[in-house]
Amino acid sequence: MRKLDPDKHAARRGQILNAATQCFAERGFHQTSTAQICAAAGMSPGNLFHYFPSKDAIIEAIVLEDSAAMAARSAELAREDDLRAALRRMLDEALASLADPLYRRISMELMAEAVRNARLFALVAENEAARRAGWRRLLQGAQAKGQIAAGAEPELLVDALLVQLDGVFSRLLLDGDFDLDRYRDLLEQQLNSLWRAA
Amino acid sequence: MRKLDPDKHAARRGQILNAATQCFAERGFHQTSTAQICAAAGMSPGNLFHYFPSKDAIIEAIVLEDSAAMAARSAELAREDDLRAALRRMLDEALASLADPLYRRISMELMAEAVRNARLFALVAENEAARRAGWRRLLQGAQAKGQIAAGAEPELLVDALLVQLDGVFSRLLLDGDFDLDRYRDLLEQQLNSLWRAA
Repeated sequence: MRKLDPDKHAARRGQILNAATQCFAERGFHQTSTAQICAAAGMSPGNLFHYFPSKDAIIEAIVLEDSAAMAARSAELAREDDLRAALRRMLDEALASLADPLYRRISMELMAEAVRNARLFALVAENEAARRAGWRRLLQGAQAKGQIAAGAEPELLVDALLVQLDGVFSRLLLDGDFDLDRYRDLLEQQLNSLWRAA
Repeated sequence: MRKLDPDKHAARRGQILNAATQCFAERGFHQTSTAQICAAAGMSPGNLFHYFPSKDAIIEAIVLEDSAAMAARSAELAREDDLRAALRRMLDEALASLADPLYRRISMELMAEAVRNARLFALVAENEAARRAGWRRLLQGAQAKGQIAAGAEPELLVDALLVQLDGVFSRLLLDGDFDLDRYRDLLEQQLNSLWRAA
């Protein structure tokens, strides 16, 4: 048996997930074949199955990777001294993702698939729990350090944030009259009034 | 040829759309057969095709009916004297719809289907335009009557409203830790600060 180099394995796995994300966003999960994913990743079908046993396994890995990336990023930001600035940065990063059509398409595909697939729904729900936990950590940390007012309940601050981000996501997806640049000031104003300095 | 009674025809059509909405929300569009819709509506398959030529035609009619209902409701509310109260009522009605799991499921099904079906996407986009137009009419009317402050751009007030409603929709659908009752006060507070009295 050939010995696997763990770094090479991880890199190849990442390439497959990127290629699959691109394919799914363009054509939808059900209209994408594993042969198309292999072509996009530049590998043979036989080789793909060393990494993922099925298309469903690739979809699930995309969600798990996103959950892990969010958890890592919020943990990193939570170690900063100025947590109010860290919150701002996390917000800017979230808005930048929403402004990316590829990200919007893959997110919509995942939601659409999750409503009909209980196993994927559980992973998406965990992903949402990871999102909540990341924001909660920054908001509670900022309150503990006295960098934002301690009055508001952290859970409610997280609600307000996620409602705004999900709302912007839907508008960008469905509403040709929505303009994120027009809305951005108002969004920041609404959130700043919640995270106001202590 | 049998003569159709237009009232009876409209009533039967409405029954079919209600039955289909229920079926689609429970099982998804693709997993629902026209036979199941007929059974739920208590009619024979041959009879169904006097009303709708295909399952796609039923889906499209559901979106068109919703667009028409929204336009009618906002036109009705726009005729009231107190448009600030009318805005409140329209918001309460929108939140009541979001609190209904059947409404959430059918909305998700429509979005999921629309991202892969250009014809349905166009109807969903028109539905969104009708939603925007309804809110815009009430907000502009209230500004014109001096019932809310005239400072803010109506288009931006509509953005803020639809972002909140769509965000609440996503949270209720995906986030087991979101509680609409907990969030409601904050939502009203944020919107009231935009619609503040003139």
